[in-house]
Amino acid sequence: MTVTIDNFQKMKNIQLLSTFFLMILFVACNNKQPKLAMENKSTSVFPKGNKITNNNFTGTAWLQMLVNNDSTYDTSIGNVTFEPGARTNWHKHPGGQILLITDGSGYYQEKGKPAQLLHKGDVVKIPPDVEHWHGAAPDKELTHIAISPNLQKGSVVWLKPVTDEEYSQMGK
Amino acid sequence: MTVTIDNFQKMKNIQLLSTFFLMILFVACNNKQPKLAMENKSTSVFPKGNKITNNNFTGTAWLQMLVNNDSTYDTSIGNVTFEPGARTNWHKHPGGQILLITDGSGYYQEKGKPAQLLHKGDVVKIPPDVEHWHGAAPDKELTHIAISPNLQKGSVVWLKPVTDEEYSQMGK
Repeated sequence: MTVTIDNFQKMKNIQLLSTFFLMILFVACNNKQPKLAMENKSTSVFPKGNKITNNNFTGTAWLQMLVNNDSTYDTSIGNVTFEPGARTNWHKHPGGQILLITDGSGYYQEKGKPAQLLHKGDVVKIPPDVEHWHGAAPDKELTHIAISPNLQKGSVVWLKPVTDEEYSQMGK
Repeated sequence: MTVTIDNFQKMKNIQLLSTFFLMILFVACNNKQPKLAMENKSTSVFPKGNKITNNNFTGTAWLQMLVNNDSTYDTSIGNVTFEPGARTNWHKHPGGQILLITDGSGYYQEKGKPAQLLHKGDVVKIPPDVEHWHGAAPDKELTHIAISPNLQKGSVVWLKPVTDEEYSQMGK
């Protein structure tokens, strides 16, 4: 094709028109961004609560109590969120504990046994007086509901922190 | 502007180009539909389980046991989904029960008291031996986790169905 002055003008018109349509395409499709963000939102039903400030955890974890213990139910229920890398100290429950994993990924380990990988929908039954820890994966948050029944048998007994060395052994 | 043969050809080109770009616009933006559908999905974490076939419920309800009772925990945990209009019979728990509402809307009523409206995120503490019922709103599903502690005190005691007349009194 020979580019004459007339053809050159036509091509310029087409170029302008193309730019115009690409702008429309950009604006029209750009509202997908917030929807993608919404899909990644947490499915947690209960509030994240307050940052835990005691020394029984490594890293940042959050607690929202759902049921405080009393002599009628002998049970406490808390919603716990661990940021990536966060975990409890080693500890044990005289009356046992049940974890309902509601979001994210993490680990549960009983002393002397390999760690178990936890996912949304998992249920963990922690037998009375068994030393253990639970927490998030190194690169993922973990949210669980912790149900502590039989509290007439005694409260949680907190032990030593889970060291970085112990935590890094998880996947091995 | 006089429409010459040459101008007519130019307009036709522009029309073809416009159609082409509108087609791209349609295809590029059309993948929004399934994402919108995903946003409306239920946030339930645990399976719906099996349809309840006993006579202790009115309407259709579903149960997924998460923890079966044993002598170590003395606790059972079930995920219950009520279809719109479905509800338990009147009943009572010798050791009490705790409901964690995880999805939808419904009602909880103790005998002789007004019904309480339930929403996602609510926690209901049902005292031992108090006659009550729970279930979905007439036009909404309800999903809750039912935690029954202190089962060494005895299992649930089932009573009469919640009649349509009793159920229709809820909002009054």
